[in-house]
Amino acid sequence: MKLKVIMPITSNVFNEEIKEEVKHYVGSNDSLDVENLNYGPASIESEFDEAMAVPDILNKVKKAQAEGFDGVVIDCFGDPGVNAARELVDIPVCGGFEPAMQIALGLGKNIGIVTVLPNVVSMIQDLISKMGIEKRVKSIRYVNIPVLDLGDKQKLEDELFNQSLEAIKSDHVHVIVLGCTGMMGMAHNLMRRLKEAGYDVPVVDPAFAAVTMVRSYVQMGLKHSRLTYMTPPVKPYSWWGN
Amino acid sequence: MKLKVIMPITSNVFNEEIKEEVKHYVGSNDSLDVENLNYGPASIESEFDEAMAVPDILNKVKKAQAEGFDGVVIDCFGDPGVNAARELVDIPVCGGFEPAMQIALGLGKNIGIVTVLPNVVSMIQDLISKMGIEKRVKSIRYVNIPVLDLGDKQKLEDELFNQSLEAIKSDHVHVIVLGCTGMMGMAHNLMRRLKEAGYDVPVVDPAFAAVTMVRSYVQMGLKHSRLTYMTPPVKPYSWWGN
Amino acid sequence: MKLKVIMPITSNVFNEEIKEEVKHYVGSNDSLDVENLNYGPASIESEFDEAMAVPDILNKVKKAQAEGFDGVVIDCFGDPGVNAARELVDIPVCGGFEPAMQIALGLGKNIGIVTVLPNVVSMIQDLISKMGIEKRVKSIRYVNIPVLDLGDKQKLEDELFNQSLEAIKSDHVHVIVLGCTGMMGMAHNLMRRLKEAGYDVPVVDPAFAAVTMVRSYVQMGLKHSRLTYMTPPVKPYSWWGN
Amino acid sequence: MKLKVIMPITSNVFNEEIKEEVKHYVGSNDSLDVENLNYGPASIESEFDEAMAVPDILNKVKKAQAEGFDGVVIDCFGDPGVNAARELVDIPVCGGFEPAMQIALGLGKNIGIVTVLPNVVSMIQDLISKMGIEKRVKSIRYVNIPVLDLGDKQKLEDELFNQSLEAIKSDHVHVIVLGCTGMMGMAHNLMRRLKEAGYDVPVVDPAFAAVTMVRSYVQMGLKHSRLTYMTPPVKPYSWWGN
Amino acid sequence: MKLKVIMPITSNVFNEEIKEEVKHYVGSNDSLDVENLNYGPASIESEFDEAMAVPDILNKVKKAQAEGFDGVVIDCFGDPGVNAARELVDIPVCGGFEPAMQIALGLGKNIGIVTVLPNVVSMIQDLISKMGIEKRVKSIRYVNIPVLDLGDKQKLEDELFNQSLEAIKSDHVHVIVLGCTGMMGMAHNLMRRLKEAGYDVPVVDPAFAAVTMVRSYVQMGLKHSRLTYMTPPVKPYSWWGN
Amino acid sequence: MKLKVIMPITSNVFNEEIKEEVKHYVGSNDSLDVENLNYGPASIESEFDEAMAVPDILNKVKKAQAEGFDGVVIDCFGDPGVNAARELVDIPVCGGFEPAMQIALGLGKNIGIVTVLPNVVSMIQDLISKMGIEKRVKSIRYVNIPVLDLGDKQKLEDELFNQSLEAIKSDHVHVIVLGCTGMMGMAHNLMRRLKEAGYDVPVVDPAFAAVTMVRSYVQMGLKHSRLTYMTPPVKPYSWWGN
Repeated sequence: MKLKVIMPITSNVFNEEIKEEVKHYVGSNDSLDVENLNYGPASIESEFDEAMAVPDILNKVKKAQAEGFDGVVIDCFGDPGVNAARELVDIPVCGGFEPAMQIALGLGKNIGIVTVLPNVVSMIQDLISKMGIEKRVKSIRYVNIPVLDLGDKQKLEDELFNQSLEAIKSDHVHVIVLGCTGMMGMAHNLMRRLKEAGYDVPVVDPAFAAVTMVRSYVQMGLKHSRLTYMTPPVKPYSWWGN
Repeated sequence: MKLKVIMPITSNVFNEEIKEEVKHYVGSNDSLDVENLNYGPASIESEFDEAMAVPDILNKVKKAQAEGFDGVVIDCFGDPGVNAARELVDIPVCGGFEPAMQIALGLGKNIGIVTVLPNVVSMIQDLISKMGIEKRVKSIRYVNIPVLDLGDKQKLEDELFNQSLEAIKSDHVHVIVLGCTGMMGMAHNLMRRLKEAGYDVPVVDPAFAAVTMVRSYVQMGLKHSRLTYMTPPVKPYSWWGN
Repeated sequence: MKLKVIMPITSNVFNEEIKEEVKHYVGSNDSLDVENLNYGPASIESEFDEAMAVPDILNKVKKAQAEGFDGVVIDCFGDPGVNAARELVDIPVCGGFEPAMQIALGLGKNIGIVTVLPNVVSMIQDLISKMGIEKRVKSIRYVNIPVLDLGDKQKLEDELFNQSLEAIKSDHVHVIVLGCTGMMGMAHNLMRRLKEAGYDVPVVDPAFAAVTMVRSYVQMGLKHSRLTYMTPPVKPYSWWGN
Repeated sequence: MKLKVIMPITSNVFNEEIKEEVKHYVGSNDSLDVENLNYGPASIESEFDEAMAVPDILNKVKKAQAEGFDGVVIDCFGDPGVNAARELVDIPVCGGFEPAMQIALGLGKNIGIVTVLPNVVSMIQDLISKMGIEKRVKSIRYVNIPVLDLGDKQKLEDELFNQSLEAIKSDHVHVIVLGCTGMMGMAHNLMRRLKEAGYDVPVVDPAFAAVTMVRSYVQMGLKHSRLTYMTPPVKPYSWWGN
Repeated sequence: MKLKVIMPITSNVFNEEIKEEVKHYVGSNDSLDVENLNYGPASIESEFDEAMAVPDILNKVKKAQAEGFDGVVIDCFGDPGVNAARELVDIPVCGGFEPAMQIALGLGKNIGIVTVLPNVVSMIQDLISKMGIEKRVKSIRYVNIPVLDLGDKQKLEDELFNQSLEAIKSDHVHVIVLGCTGMMGMAHNLMRRLKEAGYDVPVVDPAFAAVTMVRSYVQMGLKHSRLTYMTPPVKPYSWWGN
Repeated sequence: MKLKVIMPITSNVFNEEIKEEVKHYVGSNDSLDVENLNYGPASIESEFDEAMAVPDILNKVKKAQAEGFDGVVIDCFGDPGVNAARELVDIPVCGGFEPAMQIALGLGKNIGIVTVLPNVVSMIQDLISKMGIEKRVKSIRYVNIPVLDLGDKQKLEDELFNQSLEAIKSDHVHVIVLGCTGMMGMAHNLMRRLKEAGYDVPVVDPAFAAVTMVRSYVQMGLKHSRLTYMTPPVKPYSWWGN
């Protein structure tokens, strides 16, 4: 199985980490390729950032299909360009949000999301509404750390722990979903600390969830429905530099 | 009041029509400016088309604020780039969907949408979910005519009449919303024909609804909440040709 | 355009204020007429008060149509008699609730209402359910001031500020709707004070919203659907003093 | 137990029937009193009719409490004045809709209502929304017979049978609720005919349901919550003839 | 009327109490029979306990019908085996949850449940979802007392009072439902104490509610719909000791 | 990875098929064990059948954990005993419904289920409500073939094709979920036939989905939340033959 991970930002700070973690997780039989954007934002923390990332994401998705990849992960919790990408290609494409919620829906009743900044909370509310799972998500909290500062792992872990604890105690949450694909390597430590604090709850890492769901679709021989994601009608497009 | 209408496609086939209709409606006191995209699709009929339209829409919105416009209409029923635009500027910005539904919500209980192509039905379902008004929309139908063929006004009117009638009879619809801003000039004829057929129902034109809502916000001294649409954090962007 | 504002109470304490404010807002081209009830309660603060107000409201609405008015505002946040009135006449009729929520729906994701007394909170819950927008309204709070004591403007403004702040901080509200049409003249000051406190959020005045929506319907040539609001079957009625 | 049935219309055509049926059902220990309106409509088939019935309904409810009745039924499927009445008195008050749905909710998953005229369908949709049971009601149909023509029992039964059959076959309905309190004496015949047609489904008569629920509240020592139905603040009212 | 109460546990600590209370309530005309399980758990506080109780519950229900009982109460708030039982017999069968909620739905807008242990909160969430009344239930709290320790009536009453007060003040609850059928004899004292504390709210006892609803169905000549609860297809079953 | 599949019926007609299909799918690294019930029904087609299957299912689940299995599939679309099993053990446990819907939620907007008999439709409605995904499921249809007659593969495939086509055309379905774990080997043929008929839609096999999700949980190091599925309090149980 050949998987393409599109890191939908121009910064490559997360590339090695995702490679390593997925390698550890996926094992040796799969080929994994990580690719950054040429054009777009350094990080995604707003609808504006998403809008600026999507055109080049779509280029990379088309290229991935042309190069024979079996599936694509667009590695961002906001699922930028996922629907448009599914219109364009015949291989499974996932972002981080939908797979993380698919996994979480089977692990417990009340789900809470802990994300990076207040700026993306309304965007996550929209994703929840579009997915039609409002009844299951009880809490959206944030650690208030910008994406490109997530490298301070200790600070991140402490803030995730604090916010998760608050979600459990105040918002009656039973399952934690990490609300940013840049929070790699946090899930298992966080689960351990929450268990030590008396709360034996699962924590879902959206990057792992994304890879897991794409691999599942490929193994099951499934791809996205063409009745939801129809092929775009042919027409002229004009673009910068063309 | 100075209003900017961004026609979010590279084709200018709708420009004169929107100018004339809004002039007729708005009267002589307002200044109205219509502007096409330099970069993007010839028409919007998919999520891919929307994605390709949004970056230049956002350029035009920022320019409109810089040039002193009081409000902006992004003239497409899919509301492309509306949320991102609201993050960027401090003047009211509306697409076609949200205002049309706001108007329709006050006119009758069961709302039906008649749009152009099956391709955009799932996109409209998403817009309805995001707006949180699923309980009010009973039907999404389409005339099966591509956007750039809407110029055949008689065919369009006949198909709108047929689909509206079906929505009323089979889906218990009380209010019709035209599901494309390219369906200008249809609403009043359609209302008349439906009334002659025994159904005295309102028909909402989304382009008029958009201009109406933006003007209302300006008159009421209101703009979008900065708690929903926060200013994007500053960061580097790279782009074609820059 | 000739608009009738029915002040659905026997007290005339709000008449001058609404005239002046709407004049300031609407400009000189419209004619505006304000009329009190002959029979009914001194103020509306319960379902009982509403029930006692509605029969004479309906008389005034029929008279307004007979006298050639283009639209009617029933100036109360509880929308008393609005549906019955729409059954009776062929001109647009609005109360305060529905238009305020229509306006608010386009301004931000999470809406909060601040009203007068705890007595009307359940009534507002019913209005929200009937409108089908439960997903968007996160908070109903009250200043605990009876309607006829709203004349103490400083106390009202302070309590509105306190409750709005609480709605924003505790209930995650992004847009404030004033939950009584007697709270005229508050919206802009309140917006300013909230902005100074760090929250740049819109505040919707329901009386303005009502006038705005009725005017919009008239300008767009729209009235309420006869499939929702059918003409009442003819039958005998007996009444006091007839 | 002393029960008051308020027949909320000026016509007395249903009085004997309700007395007899309830006597048959309730047995000999209860006292039952039926009372018409002095002021109001001859029948209730619109929101306008309801509005004209409510003031005298409220008079009768207050009188019933003063005369020592233990509970009150407002005998109409539209629940006219029920909420206002609960604000006024400390004894249980029910209309026909809420009790019929309470009974139906325990009898099967998908509920269908068959009412009199298309005019009241939107009113019933509002009642369903206010009760918060949208997920359970799959169908609202009507026999298209005015209330005061329900005396043609054979025609009524045949049309109820036809519409119930359609509700079962086309709308997946499992439980039928009769949508007018004037449909007395129909439920058991209708159940028998539906069972003979292969559908063993319960049919709920709203007048019986109303008497049943009021009696249950009295027996259980329960009355309506004063946190939902607060006592109206004291104030002046002016009224015809006073 | 002959009613069977199945106490779905092997312990008989509640038998006398239910007999006495129902006798006091139902009066002398009804025959009431209480029966424990031979096989199952000592109390029900988990989904596992429910699963172990259901097979013998179903035996007792079939026996009750064979012995000519008119209706059956399965006396547990979790409604264990209720749906399966309805498939098996043609007489009304109720547990404690559904009837308690049916009663509560007519008493006030916002409902709160106070149950025994945190273990059953998710089970109650499932029952609410299945009944489709999520919009009406605002709070699920617990006294943290195991079922078989409910005999300490003073401790139970105090904790119910504390949790009910919290539900009213913090969760905006208007109606309290006791979330365990072992909380007999609490409702009226609790109502009195809450009223003394300034909150005139009804408290629903689920055991009484269950008997009330079964009796109502019998009196109305209604039983459960065979389109929801179809007769199980005939097939071989193997069982312990058979 | 060692997986246990519990075939929750006493018939072993499906055992070889599931082994072979999962082997083909899972590959050679995993160990898979299939085990029937000793006590229970020959097939599951009602809530009664489920109730009779659950006690021995729970025995088998506990045994599987004791024997060192990494995860358990309870191979039935009705998810019988899944929640109770999760209370008992610390390894992932899945039935067929929840995983099939988790997979389907990521493949297209409108989901349709095609199951065996009308008897289980209400049970599936309950599962959908409990999962909180009502907005996504547009259709539940059935082939009207009893579980133990599913061996006639051609008849099954033809009926699945007919009902799927109807779901797509009449109910606007985009994704098909097979509503019985006995429909193994159907998904890919059905997808091919639907594609040939012009509908390129995914078909989800619930047995594969179940194995996939359990394997995903094991690989991700996740298990069910102890805040949803608490360990049952210790107490005496009596049982047949003990």
